Amino acid sequence: MSLACGVDIGGTKILAGVVGDDGSIVEEVRVESPATDVDAITDAVSGLVADLATRHAFDNVGVGAAGYIDKQRSTVLFAPNIAWRDVNLRAELEQRTGKSVVIENDANAAAWGEFTFGAGADIDDFLLVTVGTGVGGGLVLDGSLYRGAFGIGAEIGHMRVVPGGILCGCGNLGCYEMYASGTALVRMAREAAECGRADGLLKRAGGEVESIDGPLVTTAAREGDLAALSLLGELGRWLGEGIASLTAVLDPAMVAIGGGVSEADELLLEPAREGFLSQLTGRGHRPELAIRKATLGSRAGLIGAADLARR
Amino acid sequence: MSLACGVDIGGTKILAGVVGDDGSIVEEVRVESPATDVDAITDAVSGLVADLATRHAFDNVGVGAAGYIDKQRSTVLFAPNIAWRDVNLRAELEQRTGKSVVIENDANAAAWGEFTFGAGADIDDFLLVTVGTGVGGGLVLDGSLYRGAFGIGAEIGHMRVVPGGILCGCGNLGCYEMYASGTALVRMAREAAECGRADGLLKRAGGEVESIDGPLVTTAAREGDLAALSLLGELGRWLGEGIASLTAVLDPAMVAIGGGVSEADELLLEPAREGFLSQLTGRGHRPELAIRKATLGSRAGLIGAADLARR
Amino acid sequence: MSLACGVDIGGTKILAGVVGDDGSIVEEVRVESPATDVDAITDAVSGLVADLATRHAFDNVGVGAAGYIDKQRSTVLFAPNIAWRDVNLRAELEQRTGKSVVIENDANAAAWGEFTFGAGADIDDFLLVTVGTGVGGGLVLDGSLYRGAFGIGAEIGHMRVVPGGILCGCGNLGCYEMYASGTALVRMAREAAECGRADGLLKRAGGEVESIDGPLVTTAAREGDLAALSLLGELGRWLGEGIASLTAVLDPAMVAIGGGVSEADELLLEPAREGFLSQLTGRGHRPELAIRKATLGSRAGLIGAADLARR
Amino acid sequence: MSLACGVDIGGTKILAGVVGDDGSIVEEVRVESPATDVDAITDAVSGLVADLATRHAFDNVGVGAAGYIDKQRSTVLFAPNIAWRDVNLRAELEQRTGKSVVIENDANAAAWGEFTFGAGADIDDFLLVTVGTGVGGGLVLDGSLYRGAFGIGAEIGHMRVVPGGILCGCGNLGCYEMYASGTALVRMAREAAECGRADGLLKRAGGEVESIDGPLVTTAAREGDLAALSLLGELGRWLGEGIASLTAVLDPAMVAIGGGVSEADELLLEPAREGFLSQLTGRGHRPELAIRKATLGSRAGLIGAADLARR
Repeated sequence: MSLACGVDIGGTKILAGVVGDDGSIVEEVRVESPATDVDAITDAVSGLVADLATRHAFDNVGVGAAGYIDKQRSTVLFAPNIAWRDVNLRAELEQRTGKSVVIENDANAAAWGEFTFGAGADIDDFLLVTVGTGVGGGLVLDGSLYRGAFGIGAEIGHMRVVPGGILCGCGNLGCYEMYASGTALVRMAREAAECGRADGLLKRAGGEVESIDGPLVTTAAREGDLAALSLLGELGRWLGEGIASLTAVLDPAMVAIGGGVSEADELLLEPAREGFLSQLTGRGHRPELAIRKATLGSRAGLIGAADLARR
Repeated sequence: MSLACGVDIGGTKILAGVVGDDGSIVEEVRVESPATDVDAITDAVSGLVADLATRHAFDNVGVGAAGYIDKQRSTVLFAPNIAWRDVNLRAELEQRTGKSVVIENDANAAAWGEFTFGAGADIDDFLLVTVGTGVGGGLVLDGSLYRGAFGIGAEIGHMRVVPGGILCGCGNLGCYEMYASGTALVRMAREAAECGRADGLLKRAGGEVESIDGPLVTTAAREGDLAALSLLGELGRWLGEGIASLTAVLDPAMVAIGGGVSEADELLLEPAREGFLSQLTGRGHRPELAIRKATLGSRAGLIGAADLARR
Repeated sequence: MSLACGVDIGGTKILAGVVGDDGSIVEEVRVESPATDVDAITDAVSGLVADLATRHAFDNVGVGAAGYIDKQRSTVLFAPNIAWRDVNLRAELEQRTGKSVVIENDANAAAWGEFTFGAGADIDDFLLVTVGTGVGGGLVLDGSLYRGAFGIGAEIGHMRVVPGGILCGCGNLGCYEMYASGTALVRMAREAAECGRADGLLKRAGGEVESIDGPLVTTAAREGDLAALSLLGELGRWLGEGIASLTAVLDPAMVAIGGGVSEADELLLEPAREGFLSQLTGRGHRPELAIRKATLGSRAGLIGAADLARR
Repeated sequence: MSLACGVDIGGTKILAGVVGDDGSIVEEVRVESPATDVDAITDAVSGLVADLATRHAFDNVGVGAAGYIDKQRSTVLFAPNIAWRDVNLRAELEQRTGKSVVIENDANAAAWGEFTFGAGADIDDFLLVTVGTGVGGGLVLDGSLYRGAFGIGAEIGHMRVVPGGILCGCGNLGCYEMYASGTALVRMAREAAECGRADGLLKRAGGEVESIDGPLVTTAAREGDLAALSLLGELGRWLGEGIASLTAVLDPAMVAIGGGVSEADELLLEPAREGFLSQLTGRGHRPELAIRKATLGSRAGLIGAADLARR
């Protein structure tokens, strides 16, 4: 079995793995990493790859990172949450590891993973929406990963959904990810708790509003907490309404929902479908689009990056 | 020179022409047509094609129509402004004309025309935005016309830009075309005139608010009417802000603005660029996107449809 | 018992009654009337008053009308739904009836009725919100009817709640009454039915989308129709969110909800309270405001107008 | 001349003065004060009053503070920017100073000052809008200061103007003061500078985006800087559009604009009038409302508080 190495640089941790050409993970390692320190990230990635290389034979490394990657898949032009600005990460990593490296946007890598081995395996036009700290997107169109003219397409989280809306980390007002991400879920949950509309959540958080996080809300919802269900419902509707706009533009055959918040399963997906149908232009006159949960979970990026590196 | 026939079915008229493989128009005919009568449209198209066929040798006919066309380029699934519902227009026209026919979405056809012979000729990833009665879109990605999984992609006019916004003909609230189309321009202009904020326009319209239309506003703006300039400015900003959202998703190399309202040239394009830059995520960290006027004018759809029919 | 005559000019009918100083109605008559014909309305009002005067002794007539009434309570400056423009209705009616007449805004009259004999009887600062064809408001502040500097205050239905929102009959975009009125309820219900999200309502309407009206939705909701409950919930939330804005400005001691849609009782009021609390600034740090149903029903305007005429 | 003491507790400083019954200030003292420390504020106010009392004879002290004050004008229920929660400031200050004290909302006090001695002196129904760190409001209706049923009316800055809008310090999304305050001006200016759309402002700020503040923008606008003019224009339009909503509800005879940002004079007021007229319901059919600059400047609160204390 041909092996490749995949790396996924997240906000709080870095995940690396050796991946077979069937999408299976042979070995996986991880390290906590501060998202803000560029050099520490490069060190950590190099270290993980070198470590894996002592036990596995691979030539290619694919790295998924949250940011704008240039068309050559070498340089991180800009990252909203990490201080990368025009960093040739490919050159640095190739020099340090001696491997052939490609850099991919993390959501693109995850979309490719899901397309090749996961939820989109039977589909040619496919949109992955990752709902985590932000909202990311990856597009497979006519069976190819779509990167955009400059390599920075599918940044769906920065489509504006509310003019004059909530201030986004990107500097604009009203971006989609301010309403449909895990961050939005936590903001809404804490607000509800502060106003006495989510006593159950507050109790679970030991009375500390700041201790309310996404998994706490999801767990509470699973156990029937009405406030938590309502919050996931509101998040899901925003999510689905945005997918309706994206569908008007992209007309995908399927949308998969990934990212940490997708662990809420149907508690998120069902209101997302409702929101989607309520806003879909031409509904009733077009084939129906499935909205499904992504199947590779948090390893989609790693698996996709490895596969892209091999090609 | 190989010839093909192109037809563009608009809201008030049908345009047909014989087009060379260099994009030149050998002969062009047109007929007024009520947008609401499906049979009359089919009759009119057949008549125009038959007429042209008496003087020119062609085998292929490409028809551009405002509506959702299925992936097989045969059936109009739904048209927002014409009463087509699941009509196999291709079969009907092939039977009547004896020619090989393909049906394309009108904005897709226009995008292909601009890509092949016009504003996008040097570009691989290209978005055409047509600003007319509505806002249409056509996408060329990696050098191919992108139709979407079901043939109905690039319906950018129905991206939602204002939650709870103006009621669109499609039944949703807040669609892009309610803010950035010629219809929006006329609505804003009449409203301004009614409130005494556009006396110059009212005077040009002979004192009749209902006589204010798009060309009147554009002409007034060209002659320095401040209210008209302000209206085109507001329209342009909405247009550009929407293009910023589309760019986050699609990352095109260039955007061309076509449709009737694009006749306002820089009076529309300059505020569109301002609106675009004010809302573009990651600006300053990404290559700059040109927003240009389309170059084929009202014949883009006809030329593109003919070329697509030939391929 | 001292008697006065009250008249309420509505969109489709005119109601007149002889009212005692305890708010009781001695006799009531009504006539259907086209809302568009100004002279027919004047004729009809005169006729009703003359008829009542043959059987009852009264000197004063109070007329409630949907429009901007000047500070002198004489002239209808403007009516959004009737073609009154600067009509001295008081002079016309006094001449025709020989009685002393005052003209009041209909929602103001209803607020005074509720304040004097109904829901606001124990309260000094009181806001009546009428939810009917539009959204009207009446304000009693420090125990006096508040008319505004020019006699046209409390037009709460034209507070803007969505920038760039739905086009209102007043010519602006995004007015409160476009989201929180009976008209909004019907629009949402028909839209839901068209998209297959309200089959129960469609069935009740005999399959005719256009036959869906407000009472049909309310009846269905009372009988447990989920789509109808959801629609009243959405309407109620918009209503309550607007009341939160009005409360920030006005700080009333109580809000009463009147108008035809208030017949939905708690199915409307409960979501209104939720929407209100979710948006109330400083909640938890201010006394809680009661939102109650108005108690005089459709006669509030008539009773209030009569009482105002007497004072 | 009868004297009273007025105190204005602001975000960064406390101003106290001895005021004659003609509104003239006999002596004024001030102290810098951290807005966050409640005890330090009480100490500072007591100290200033005691100091003034050594040189002037007065019995009454009026204190204006940014917060919700109860109807008895004693207790600060809640302050958005200071940690007051249910503090009986009146009792504390009376004990410490031996004077008779009333507490007033700062914008209410300023409105009373303007009504009695300033811009509203010839008017019975009057709205003061203060544009500073936030947007405050004070209402004089029928010649009386309107405090609301619970003493917390006229908090106009927390009327919602954008559903799902910018997160306000009060915990809600989309409050008026997020779009029309000095804070909004600074946010927009810094954003413009970061994106290269306000190079002139950046240069004035020594290249430091964080050094851009409101007075810098106003100064630049006065000297013709186009970006600064455009920013004040946008602020003014939001301001005026909100006043249109407030006018629908309140129908004042005049609106005065005070607060620090009003120093921009017509550069702010002219676009405010434009925004107002563009959104005023029934325009053309109602008397025209003047929007003027307040005339007492930063001393309006102090003067008004002193006068209210005396009555």
